[in-house]
Amino acid sequence: MKSNIEIQRVEKSNIENVDFNNLPFGSVYSDHMLECDFVNGEWQTAVIKPYAPISLDPSAKIFHYGQSIFEGMKAYKDADGNTMLFRPLDNCKRLNKSAERLVIPQIPEDIFMDGLKKLLEIDNNWIPTNEGSSLYIRPFMFASGLGFHASPADEYKFIICTAPSGAYFAGKVKVLIEEKYARAANGGVGFAKAGGNYAAQFYPTQLAIQKGYNQVIWTDDNSHEYIEEAGAMNIFIRIGNTLITSPTNDRILDGITRKSIIQIAQDSGIDVEVRKITVSEVISAAQNGNLKEMFGAGTAAVISPIAGFGYQGKDYDLPELENPFATTLKKAITDIQTNKAEDPYGWRVMV
Amino acid sequence: MKSNIEIQRVEKSNIENVDFNNLPFGSVYSDHMLECDFVNGEWQTAVIKPYAPISLDPSAKIFHYGQSIFEGMKAYKDADGNTMLFRPLDNCKRLNKSAERLVIPQIPEDIFMDGLKKLLEIDNNWIPTNEGSSLYIRPFMFASGLGFHASPADEYKFIICTAPSGAYFAGKVKVLIEEKYARAANGGVGFAKAGGNYAAQFYPTQLAIQKGYNQVIWTDDNSHEYIEEAGAMNIFIRIGNTLITSPTNDRILDGITRKSIIQIAQDSGIDVEVRKITVSEVISAAQNGNLKEMFGAGTAAVISPIAGFGYQGKDYDLPELENPFATTLKKAITDIQTNKAEDPYGWRVMV
Ligand SMILES: Cc1ncc(COP(=O)(O)O)c(C=O)c1O
Ligand SMILES: Cc1ncc(COP(=O)(O)O)c(C=O)c1O
Repeated sequence: MKSNIEIQRVEKSNIENVDFNNLPFGSVYSDHMLECDFVNGEWQTAVIKPYAPISLDPSAKIFHYGQSIFEGMKAYKDADGNTMLFRPLDNCKRLNKSAERLVIPQIPEDIFMDGLKKLLEIDNNWIPTNEGSSLYIRPFMFASGLGFHASPADEYKFIICTAPSGAYFAGKVKVLIEEKYARAANGGVGFAKAGGNYAAQFYPTQLAIQKGYNQVIWTDDNSHEYIEEAGAMNIFIRIGNTLITSPTNDRILDGITRKSIIQIAQDSGIDVEVRKITVSEVISAAQNGNLKEMFGAGTAAVISPIAGFGYQGKDYDLPELENPFATTLKKAITDIQTNKAEDPYGWRVMV
Repeated sequence: MKSNIEIQRVEKSNIENVDFNNLPFGSVYSDHMLECDFVNGEWQTAVIKPYAPISLDPSAKIFHYGQSIFEGMKAYKDADGNTMLFRPLDNCKRLNKSAERLVIPQIPEDIFMDGLKKLLEIDNNWIPTNEGSSLYIRPFMFASGLGFHASPADEYKFIICTAPSGAYFAGKVKVLIEEKYARAANGGVGFAKAGGNYAAQFYPTQLAIQKGYNQVIWTDDNSHEYIEEAGAMNIFIRIGNTLITSPTNDRILDGITRKSIIQIAQDSGIDVEVRKITVSEVISAAQNGNLKEMFGAGTAAVISPIAGFGYQGKDYDLPELENPFATTLKKAITDIQTNKAEDPYGWRVMV
């Protein structure tokens, strides 16, 4: 272990109060959290301590200027009880990419990685073993420095919390292709996991929910003709036997699930196209029967199949396939994640 | 007083430690703050209490999903020691417009207005009397409800803090017309005072500062051909004797200073055009000598004259005028704000 981590253990674990057979998503928290403060221009000693409230001055910039970024990852237990992470360094690198865009200091990789591993060691029995469950990991960073002045803060906190979690979505979702609202601007922060991006999604999503949909399919803010993301997931669309996903750009998050799915699909002989995809092309495919599948891809839900979508007041259903790509690919990636299959890519990290 | 406010006073005021002749902007805080919690679907009793840290669970959604909005206002003392606010209800209404877009509950106008007035009564001697100084008022609301799930929180805090403040900008600023980055998307949250909008501005602003400018002039995210805002201010451009400002839209904040300046300018016989303004038009005007003035307008700086701007690697200076509109208009609006002039508009509110 390169970095020094100070450890303060809970006096009494809270784990007995948790029903691991009925876990919600992301709302039960493990005993400990990791915290590291950026003060006087440098990161201080990271501390693993009991999960507890954070105390902040009312003028802390997080409350005013939205300087906050986060990551989402999962830890799994394999059949032998080993702890598995999936491409964790990619989350660290993406957090730092987000940090750069939001003018938040870079978190050193050893604080992130060693801190995370140590935290998982200490709260190891919080990692669920039930099928479909996992330990959801939430690293985040925000401005704790003070001042009512719209400029970057001089102090920050990096925190990792974990939450034993059940599955994210219950079943198939119905989505609405967005024609008016947008989550990201050209030259904006859509590619970053910045807090503000998510708050911006709530209102359009709420309108969609009121109309009977579960999620919004985001389109570009200018023409609304290009399909970009599905809620807080990347999107895959199968037309005929070709699996299509939009290239990432400065409006789209470079999802770790997305790039893993592209790789797995290609290696299992699926024809994958990473290219811009238009709404009109999807509508035509739906009309002529070539639209076979749509699904979201992201850490929380892994793969979230879409049952149908709405566009311009019309609803389109997707067919019920016997062996959808979604099922094959979800099995393939979760088998790698949970050490049920070989990992030819070196993605899995045993802690 | 319609709403009930609970009052907890400080044991000992901190005012003796404050040098009112050397006030920074927004970084010295008055003795008290107002806090009101939204819990179980309703706003609880507002409390005025000693300015003190806020304690939040690490899973509070403010840290993760950027559900935060704010306002900026000022209180002034007139020559007789009366306390003056400027169009305060407009700030309340705008906060609620921001709230709607960010799926934050509406704050009732009486909690906002009565709470603010009571707070100013209690911390009345914190309102500076020096020329150019004022009490900066920061109402803000954020998600205090919990969960690692990208959806609106179920609990919120509404807080008002105040900070006796000196002038925001020291002198004239040099600005850079943005060609790559953007602060707001079409169909996004640019019109709201959402925290995330400000964090999104920091990186491009920092790049501009590194090139020797003070601020960025924001252009539309699609063509970068339309001039929209100046840093965190609205922008006015004088070509010949015409004062031009962009119409507000869903990317631009509907500034209270902006609309007041438009009104005052029109009523003092200045030719005002509220219309889209292109970068190329400004460049041509700069080249043929018709570009007379550019200035930002916002509560913090009131009016912030621009000395020159950069675009596509070239710098353009603005002339030094004897009687710029900026000076006349700044005097006119601050005279109304500080009760040195008649207020034919009913904008000033005596507390
Ligand atoms: C906007 C957005 N798109 C896509 C994703 C998927 O990214 P990942 O697969 O790395 O979780 C996420 C995060 O889950 C996201 O927030
Ligand atoms: C982005 C932005 N534009 C313009 C303004 C000016 O608005 P107001 O005059 O109401 O302060 C502000 C706030 O000061 C702002 O944050």
